Amino acid sequence: MPKTIVVALGGNAILQPGQRGTAAEQYENIAVTARQIARMVADGHRVVVTHGNGPQVGNILIQQEEGSAAVPPMPLDVCGAMSQGFIGYYLQQCLGRELVTLGLDVPVATIVTQVVVDVGDAAFQNPTKPVGPFYSEERARELVAAKGWRMKEDAGRGWRRVVPSPDPRGIVEAPVIRSVVASGAVVIASGGGGVPVAVGEGGHLLGVEAVIDKDLAAERLACEVGADVLIILTDVEKAAVNYRQPGETWLGELTLEQARAYQAQGHFQAGSMGPKVEAALRFVEGGGELAVITSLSRAMAALAGETGTRIRGAAAAGAAGWEAPVGEQGYRAARGR
Amino acid sequence: MPKTIVVALGGNAILQPGQRGTAAEQYENIAVTARQIARMVADGHRVVVTHGNGPQVGNILIQQEEGSAAVPPMPLDVCGAMSQGFIGYYLQQCLGRELVTLGLDVPVATIVTQVVVDVGDAAFQNPTKPVGPFYSEERARELVAAKGWRMKEDAGRGWRRVVPSPDPRGIVEAPVIRSVVASGAVVIASGGGGVPVAVGEGGHLLGVEAVIDKDLAAERLACEVGADVLIILTDVEKAAVNYRQPGETWLGELTLEQARAYQAQGHFQAGSMGPKVEAALRFVEGGGELAVITSLSRAMAALAGETGTRIRGAAAAGAAGWEAPVGEQGYRAARGR
Repeated sequence: MPKTIVVALGGNAILQPGQRGTAAEQYENIAVTARQIARMVADGHRVVVTHGNGPQVGNILIQQEEGSAAVPPMPLDVCGAMSQGFIGYYLQQCLGRELVTLGLDVPVATIVTQVVVDVGDAAFQNPTKPVGPFYSEERARELVAAKGWRMKEDAGRGWRRVVPSPDPRGIVEAPVIRSVVASGAVVIASGGGGVPVAVGEGGHLLGVEAVIDKDLAAERLACEVGADVLIILTDVEKAAVNYRQPGETWLGELTLEQARAYQAQGHFQAGSMGPKVEAALRFVEGGGELAVITSLSRAMAALAGETGTRIRGAAAAGAAGWEAPVGEQGYRAARGR
Repeated sequence: MPKTIVVALGGNAILQPGQRGTAAEQYENIAVTARQIARMVADGHRVVVTHGNGPQVGNILIQQEEGSAAVPPMPLDVCGAMSQGFIGYYLQQCLGRELVTLGLDVPVATIVTQVVVDVGDAAFQNPTKPVGPFYSEERARELVAAKGWRMKEDAGRGWRRVVPSPDPRGIVEAPVIRSVVASGAVVIASGGGGVPVAVGEGGHLLGVEAVIDKDLAAERLACEVGADVLIILTDVEKAAVNYRQPGETWLGELTLEQARAYQAQGHFQAGSMGPKVEAALRFVEGGGELAVITSLSRAMAALAGETGTRIRGAAAAGAAGWEAPVGEQGYRAARGR
C-alpha cells in the first residue's frame, strides 16, 4: 500500500566529509541522493523530503562576514531561508531529472518553511549551537557589542557565535505542504530544521536567531502532514548501543520501550544519534506507523524491512505489520534490471 | 466576482532608492507592500505574488566574491534560488501578519521556481544584463579565464559581468503553483524572474547563467496559472507616451492596438517600462482579461478601474467589462473604517 513518507536527509547527502563545498560537489551528491528518493516515488509512495543545512548556512554566514564592508550582512533567519532556496533548488532539479528518467510525471516543489518555536523554551537561556565563522577576539567583542550575540571561545581556534536550539512546535506552512502532497507532488520542506519563528502579539510571526534540529523538525513535519513513515538518513546503517565501544551492538527492530530504555541509558549521543532516536520515538508515540534510521544507500532495503533501526508504533506493531510494497528486488524487477 | 490575480512587485517594493539594503530596511518595505497585497486577498481574490531580485542577488553575488578566499562561490542560478528563499520568507511572514490582522485564515507559501529558457534564444549570443560587483581589470581577466564569463567595462566604474536575458518559455513548477492557488493559499513564486533552466538531453533541466526579466516571467506565470488579471507594480502610477519629454501624456485605458502602436513608436524604454508593457500585451493577447501597470499604493484603485494603465483583452472589452468587486471605498466600508 502506498504510504506518505517523510525523508530526513543527513548532512552527507549534500556534502561529504573533506569536501570544500563547491557547487559541483554539492550538485553531484544531491544527484546521488535524488536517485534513492526517486525510487520511493517510483514505488508509489508520497514523499516529503527535508534536509540539514549546517555547512551551507555556515558558508553563507562566512560570506555575510567577509562581505560586510561592502554589503549589509543578513541575519541568521534570512541566511536559513537562503539555504532552503539553494538546497531546495538543487534537490528539485535532481529529483525532477530522476523522475523523468523513470518515466514518471510527478511534480517536485520546494516550499520555504517557517517553524514555530516557544520563546519560553529553556534553550534560549543556554545557547549551545555554534554557527558561522571563527572570529578573532577583537572582532568577537565588536559583534557582542553591536549585535548582542553570544560568543564562545572554541578550543583555541577562535571565537564563534552560539545560538539557542529550541524545540520545534509547529510547521507554519503545513496546510500548504499537505495540499501539495495530496496533489501527488514531491515536496521539499523545512530545510535546515526550518526558519525558526516565534509567535508574537496578535499571532504575528517573527524570525528568531536560533537553529532548530533538523531531525526534530522532520518529526513535526511528519506529524503535521499525517505521514505514515519517518525515515531518517545518516552515515550509518543502524543505530547502536555501546557505539564504538566494547559490546557495540547494531539495533534492528526495536519496540518503543526498548528504544526509550537505551536512550535513558545514554547510548545515543547528543547532537548526533540522540536527536534522531528522539525524533523517531516522538513520531511513533504520536501515532506514526514506522520510524526508520538508516543510511542513504540502504533506504529502500530498510523500508522493505531488510535493515535499518526500525521502531514501530503500537497500532502497527499490533497489526500484521507493514512492509514496503516492492522493496529492493521488486524495484529491480519493476525497472526490468 | 473573485479573480485570480498575479501581482508583479517592482524593485522599490523591497528596496527604496538610496537604501543600503539592511535587513531592517527590506523588512520594513516588504511590510508596507504586504499591506496592499493583503487587501486584494481580503477582497476575495486569489493572489500570486512575484517579485524582482536585482539588488538582493547583486548583494549575494558581491558576498560570493568577497568571501571567495574562504568559501567556494556559488553560481548565478544558485544565488537566484537563494534570493527567492530570502525575499519569499520575508514576504510570507509579512503577508501572514497582515492577513492575521485582517482576521483572515489564508495560508501563504513561497515555491522555489525554475523557469525554462531556450538555449537557442538570440540573447545567448549577446549577453547584455550586468550582474554582481564591479571588478578591477586584473580580476576581470582572471574571471574570464577561470569561468568563461563575459565582462564589460562600465563607464569608468570598473568591469562587470554581463549575462544573457532570454525570454521565459515555461514555469516548471506551474502544476504545483496551480494546485496551491486552487487550495486557497497565497503563493509567492518565480522570484527574480525564476531560476533560468534549459531543457537538456532526455528532458532533463539544468541551470543556466542568465537573468530572466521578472515582468516577462510574471506574464508566463499568469498565463500558466490561468490568472484573470496581471498587475505590474512600479514606481509610477501609469505608463506614459513622451515620458519626461514635451507632450508627456499618462495612459489610462488602452486597447491592445493602441498599446502596440505606442510600443512600435518607441515610447516605452527597454529595461524599464518596455518589458512591463510587453508583458501586459502578451498577457491579454494570450487570453488574459486585464493587465494593469501602476504603483504599489494605487494598486487597489487601479484594480477598481480608477487609475493605472489598463489594457483589456478582446473578450473582456467586448463584454460588460470587469471591475474589482469592492475597490478603495468598498474596502474601507468592509473593514468598518
